[in-house]
Amino acid sequence: MLDRLLCLVFALVSITAIGQDDEAFFIKSIYDHTLTEGVCHPWLSEMCTDIGGRLSGSDNANKATDFVKSKLLSLSLDTVYKQPCMVPAWERGDLEIVKYISDGEELSASALGNSIGTGGKILMAEVIEVQSLDEVRELGREKIMGKIVFYNRPMDPKQLTTFSAYGGAVDQRVFGATVAAEYGGVAALVRSMTLRIDDHPHTGVMSYKGDYPKIPGLAISTLDADELSKRLAKGKVKISIQNDAKVLPERESYNVIGEIKGTEFPEEIILVGGHLDSWDIGQGAHDDGAGCAHVMQVMHTLKKLNYKPKRTIRCVLFMNEENGLGGGNEYAKVSNEKGEYHLAALESDAGGFTPRGFTCEGDTSTFKKFFISLNAFEDILSPYNLYIKKGGGGADIRPLKSQKGLLIGFRPDSQRYFDYHHTAIDKIDAVNKRELELGAAAITSLVYLIDQHGL
Amino acid sequence: MLDRLLCLVFALVSITAIGQDDEAFFIKSIYDHTLTEGVCHPWLSEMCTDIGGRLSGSDNANKATDFVKSKLLSLSLDTVYKQPCMVPAWERGDLEIVKYISDGEELSASALGNSIGTGGKILMAEVIEVQSLDEVRELGREKIMGKIVFYNRPMDPKQLTTFSAYGGAVDQRVFGATVAAEYGGVAALVRSMTLRIDDHPHTGVMSYKGDYPKIPGLAISTLDADELSKRLAKGKVKISIQNDAKVLPERESYNVIGEIKGTEFPEEIILVGGHLDSWDIGQGAHDDGAGCAHVMQVMHTLKKLNYKPKRTIRCVLFMNEENGLGGGNEYAKVSNEKGEYHLAALESDAGGFTPRGFTCEGDTSTFKKFFISLNAFEDILSPYNLYIKKGGGGADIRPLKSQKGLLIGFRPDSQRYFDYHHTAIDKIDAVNKRELELGAAAITSLVYLIDQHGL
Repeated sequence: MLDRLLCLVFALVSITAIGQDDEAFFIKSIYDHTLTEGVCHPWLSEMCTDIGGRLSGSDNANKATDFVKSKLLSLSLDTVYKQPCMVPAWERGDLEIVKYISDGEELSASALGNSIGTGGKILMAEVIEVQSLDEVRELGREKIMGKIVFYNRPMDPKQLTTFSAYGGAVDQRVFGATVAAEYGGVAALVRSMTLRIDDHPHTGVMSYKGDYPKIPGLAISTLDADELSKRLAKGKVKISIQNDAKVLPERESYNVIGEIKGTEFPEEIILVGGHLDSWDIGQGAHDDGAGCAHVMQVMHTLKKLNYKPKRTIRCVLFMNEENGLGGGNEYAKVSNEKGEYHLAALESDAGGFTPRGFTCEGDTSTFKKFFISLNAFEDILSPYNLYIKKGGGGADIRPLKSQKGLLIGFRPDSQRYFDYHHTAIDKIDAVNKRELELGAAAITSLVYLIDQHGL
Repeated sequence: MLDRLLCLVFALVSITAIGQDDEAFFIKSIYDHTLTEGVCHPWLSEMCTDIGGRLSGSDNANKATDFVKSKLLSLSLDTVYKQPCMVPAWERGDLEIVKYISDGEELSASALGNSIGTGGKILMAEVIEVQSLDEVRELGREKIMGKIVFYNRPMDPKQLTTFSAYGGAVDQRVFGATVAAEYGGVAALVRSMTLRIDDHPHTGVMSYKGDYPKIPGLAISTLDADELSKRLAKGKVKISIQNDAKVLPERESYNVIGEIKGTEFPEEIILVGGHLDSWDIGQGAHDDGAGCAHVMQVMHTLKKLNYKPKRTIRCVLFMNEENGLGGGNEYAKVSNEKGEYHLAALESDAGGFTPRGFTCEGDTSTFKKFFISLNAFEDILSPYNLYIKKGGGGADIRPLKSQKGLLIGFRPDSQRYFDYHHTAIDKIDAVNKRELELGAAAITSLVYLIDQHGL
């Protein structure tokens, strides 16, 4: 508690010194602009409906780079360009059928990204249900050999943020197939990563490790996971899988970058980023069209308010967050080669919902200094009910950690995110215009405060 | 700032004295129960789909009183009963047509509650657009006489909470017809109370004042309001209105009440309330089915956790919040006659969205004392990101103000509320299960803290 009191006193001193009224006024103008003249929703709507899903390595993803580049060009920024990067390419294919052998009933299934398929052939086997990777290891080759391994541990509804619940279950999706293969499994079915009970399978990345055979991995809807579990409780269940997902050779794609050069400290970069790629099903509206829309709105707002930043403000639409981080890694590599310094990098990759706050991480030696500034910011942002806490930044900006700046994650309300995440219903109609705008205004406000004060 | 520091010190002392750990643990169990075994969503779903809209004075509203009574009876509370109250009755009727004379195109319209209709006849007149009640007064009889007055001032998107935006525009809906009538207007059309641009008209209460003639009042969708305004910018526009809304004689209806008797201070009542009535269109899922579900969940949770409250905890499902407050007024009258004392009364009437916090009002002489306790509560609730601020309680509990207890309004996130409010799409599919549950858990936690500490 004493720490907290001291922080508040620091905050008070810091704020008084820097003209809180002017800042509060400018932040109000950021909100007013975004809520009345914001472009984030119409731009996101255009990208979702005209382009749709934007899987890395697909033509759609590359179309999307041209789309956002043209939007950034319309803002008269100082620089707008595409930065080449290599990305993996994976195709779902047209065939995707998972059925019960007994009655032919189909399950709602979706191949996991990076998974091989059955090569169009029918793979048929008995199903064994497990709750964890460890259970597969305990059951061993004798029980797993020749089986389709069905991972059915639900996300934990007791977690307050759905991201915590996701974090506690997603190992099944990422490593389920490869661990099953290690013990002789022939395929993996994974309960979809959502707290809802519905008919939508949730795809997402999986990964093969070591020299074990590559076997197909697919997600099934939570309704079908419950049904499959019920059938298994009654006796043996055989299932057939037939799909033609495949990994293709790497392709060139792009990050898209736009910046406003700083007037006083141009070498200090404040980055705002989202990722342009999405999964192939749905429109990637929340994941992460919303993040792209947020950060383009930041640039729109700063330009329209005629703001001349002290530091360089750069927005980056990263390619390939979902299945490889090709864009994020390339961005950091080039940045390091140029000897750049990112004072702060913020990522929006948690959907277009009402903003709750920000989480921050940074080099331990400098984090304390940051935290005092951030407490002052939290006070200025208090009319907007935004918290600032310690916590993660984001996948695309993580490679910038070595530059020892501050990494910030934008945190909107998380309750509905996994209703849509990686599904066919992650579409523009799931994004509320005002919630999206408020997110953009919150991010712009924090960027403005960091630009004014440094850290 | 000094005030704030002092409050924190008070909070610290207060918390240390009362065993914060036990309380944090019990609050965690409240959340765990609600998120895993909550009944609020299935019960709300049942009420919405089996009964639907529940306008005061309708058979549906009375059916709903039996429904919630049966649910409360299933909880083995100490007392469950229906409290009679008289409520107005109003019927929309089957006929509701608003059209342009020029091309016969229909507008999406909905009669306002308590409004008369055209008696089934066609009312045809020229339209005049205004932005406010004052503009009608300024234009005067000469310009208004014989016209349909079209109120088109939108809700202000710059307001952060949509309730503020609503509060700044809703005078047009409530008083538009009666002010128009004062200057000779023959009907009023009101732009729907929402920030969305869509095709759903939003009904809601209106009121006739004085001896001016009663004229029909209807809401039109925001899309149609924009279209009508465009047509008016080009020249004269004539519209026809034909509907048969009518006011019927008062009827008997009921509040539904359930309580758990306090073990130490049974005479100190902590009330949690929502309102059971809704508008006739849609299912009243957010307004205020969600509030009813919240407060029934409070009782469910306390009973299932085997909690023996020190004070009497009473849940009240009020009748007739929307168009008369018959239930709220009767409840307070009976309570005063019995000499009861409501230490605190909390109302949930802002939808089933993710909880943001609570607003409190109370008698000025005692409010300071309350506020210190509330600061302590806010600290205990901080893991749940809930604020406690000064602000309004709720319409149904306002008549209890004379008992000088604390009145509390539950404040969920407001951004989507007016997307659904008083429309045909305020249905169960607009309510997210976890958001609803988190609201119930937040309310239960505050009720528990007030019960433990008094105020």
